[in-house]
Amino acid sequence: MITFEKAHTEVMKNTASWGLETVHITASTDRILATDVFADRDFPPFHRATKDGIAINYEAIHKGINAFPIEGIASAGSPQVSLKSVSNCIEIMTGAVLPDNTDTVIMYEETEIKNGTAVILKKPQIGQNIHRKGSDEKQGDLLLKAPLKITSAEIGVLASVGISEVSVFKNPKVAIVSTGNELVDINQKPLPHQIRKSNSYSLHALLEAERIKADLLHLADEPAIIREKLSEALKTYDVLLLSGGVSKGKYDYIPGILAQLGVEKVFHFVMQQPGKPFWFGVHPELKTVIFSFPGNPVSTFANYHIYFKDWLQACFGLKSTAFEAILTREITGSETLTKFIKVKTHFESGQLFAEAIPENGSGDLTSLARSDGFVKIEAGKGTVRKGSCVSFIPTRKII
Amino acid sequence: MITFEKAHTEVMKNTASWGLETVHITASTDRILATDVFADRDFPPFHRATKDGIAINYEAIHKGINAFPIEGIASAGSPQVSLKSVSNCIEIMTGAVLPDNTDTVIMYEETEIKNGTAVILKKPQIGQNIHRKGSDEKQGDLLLKAPLKITSAEIGVLASVGISEVSVFKNPKVAIVSTGNELVDINQKPLPHQIRKSNSYSLHALLEAERIKADLLHLADEPAIIREKLSEALKTYDVLLLSGGVSKGKYDYIPGILAQLGVEKVFHFVMQQPGKPFWFGVHPELKTVIFSFPGNPVSTFANYHIYFKDWLQACFGLKSTAFEAILTREITGSETLTKFIKVKTHFESGQLFAEAIPENGSGDLTSLARSDGFVKIEAGKGTVRKGSCVSFIPTRKII
Repeated sequence: MITFEKAHTEVMKNTASWGLETVHITASTDRILATDVFADRDFPPFHRATKDGIAINYEAIHKGINAFPIEGIASAGSPQVSLKSVSNCIEIMTGAVLPDNTDTVIMYEETEIKNGTAVILKKPQIGQNIHRKGSDEKQGDLLLKAPLKITSAEIGVLASVGISEVSVFKNPKVAIVSTGNELVDINQKPLPHQIRKSNSYSLHALLEAERIKADLLHLADEPAIIREKLSEALKTYDVLLLSGGVSKGKYDYIPGILAQLGVEKVFHFVMQQPGKPFWFGVHPELKTVIFSFPGNPVSTFANYHIYFKDWLQACFGLKSTAFEAILTREITGSETLTKFIKVKTHFESGQLFAEAIPENGSGDLTSLARSDGFVKIEAGKGTVRKGSCVSFIPTRKII
Repeated sequence: MITFEKAHTEVMKNTASWGLETVHITASTDRILATDVFADRDFPPFHRATKDGIAINYEAIHKGINAFPIEGIASAGSPQVSLKSVSNCIEIMTGAVLPDNTDTVIMYEETEIKNGTAVILKKPQIGQNIHRKGSDEKQGDLLLKAPLKITSAEIGVLASVGISEVSVFKNPKVAIVSTGNELVDINQKPLPHQIRKSNSYSLHALLEAERIKADLLHLADEPAIIREKLSEALKTYDVLLLSGGVSKGKYDYIPGILAQLGVEKVFHFVMQQPGKPFWFGVHPELKTVIFSFPGNPVSTFANYHIYFKDWLQACFGLKSTAFEAILTREITGSETLTKFIKVKTHFESGQLFAEAIPENGSGDLTSLARSDGFVKIEAGKGTVRKGSCVSFIPTRKII
């Protein structure tokens, strides 16, 4: 049995990568950008009017002119026009190219237009209402540095530099493998001694948030079947997420069979609660990575967030973010185990507060729906007092 | 021109609803649960062993027995067995039904098994290592209260009560409508006076996070075309999100044409920055709701988060969560306008800190990729000092 810290380090040592692919921009949200993105031209690419009104040459203001005959119009999407006489003006629309021979834009609200002449009501500032060429970014500037999770803001940048096919990191092919003869499918009516599968569906949803469409497999507690199906799965998938079958029971065949199939155990059993019987290994030739979580819902859910999420980020070269929350009630840890305690949080005045929820052990599935994450209390810490700042692992979006 | 507060209130008065639908559980993540979910039986449905080991009747302990001949085995997924003699034990696996006539489970680590007899190494507690029937939830208990956003934790609950088809609120049919002759598609090489569309793709990504697959339309600045296409769109969609064409320019035809098509304007122009020329209206018969945002990328992005997100939540009966962040530098607001200022945040010791990023007006698209959200500074607030707590609108996931 190893410590939590050691287990986490071991998992993070065994990252993998699955190459790159290109996806259409509309399918790239939440994917990990794989190549840097540069400005293909200046941003904005021209002196751009930011108001609807008139464009003038400020020399006219110096000359004391305040009534400007309108010479023409500059609309957004039209090529640049030119002001012929500095005592005239050109009507201009937001987004239009600033006409040649002009340097200042006065918005309609500060003019009065009559008989083709704009009278200005207020002395303008030279250069006002112009979003200057290259003032956001210069051609060749780095706009997005890979690796980076693509969100709506990055999508806007990708679109504006013309990247409709986005280079992203390939996601692993993942199978979620449930085990346990007590499990029946959602649609079935369980007999008194049976329960429905739930871990597989929770894991499926968690992976979906990472844009990974996982396959669901189920193994009966039957060595021959387990061996055959796992052998196949090791070749087909990059990652296996198993739940169940890794404790000390008579029918916990998984560790033995994985070893027979050539998977190298990195560790089994971690000094943590929940999630202690976690088995982790890698197939040295096939490179398949196996996260074999204990079957209790809270254990699987915790270990996914504690290990798998960090590991996946690291596979893409991303650093995981560590969060802390402030306890609103004391929490007591364990002498020997790193404890992960379910908490409900609230965010107030810029501070994240957490409070342990009543819970009933690692089989207590419904408590996960009442909690927002886990706080981590290290082994031997004893009682951590109200007001303390503790490590927090969110299991849903908080902000 | 109305205040921001008034505009927000008006938007929230015009919520809509689009009925219910059922989706498969694997497609229900991030959807809004529409009906309450109750426990279909006790959770757990039987006294469930939480450890691998032996099950005994505690009477034996009272009698001083510490060596228990093994009578049989109780495995997970098998019907309940029964202990015949209180001086014997039954081997039991995690997840199995506690045998009749037993009340305590001792884990393997605290026994020594030889020649079919288990000797216990440590005096057990009566009732230990049993997850008692109904101790999490009783049959009929409310497990999930609608409306509620479905995440992986709720998926686990839905699966375990056998709901494979989930009743959720229908999302609106949304069209994203870009306008402006200066815009070309991502794949096109823009001429010097043109730029590529980006707002449509950002909005598309934002709606995708709400599980709304929006259609993209583009309108040239040509009244006849706008009229025809908007007339069609008003009938086809529940919501139109427009960007551009709502300012004071000569070619800002949108407000006029919407009025001709029978859309009732709720307001136009809000005392806010960015996003001032926001036009909002509803078609009284068709019930189409129109958010017509100004075309600048920052304006559209801000108004989506400020108005549309809250409105969509309210349409499902969900309350929006208000967040605050702590300023690490002072920020100066406006005398007359509610300001939304782009900030970069960092989360430390349970606290969310925000700092304004250098910015270049509402055309500065790339600044959105450098920021995490907006802080709101009310009109007339002047300078808000370092250390102050201010309203924060996240535009990406923070925690």
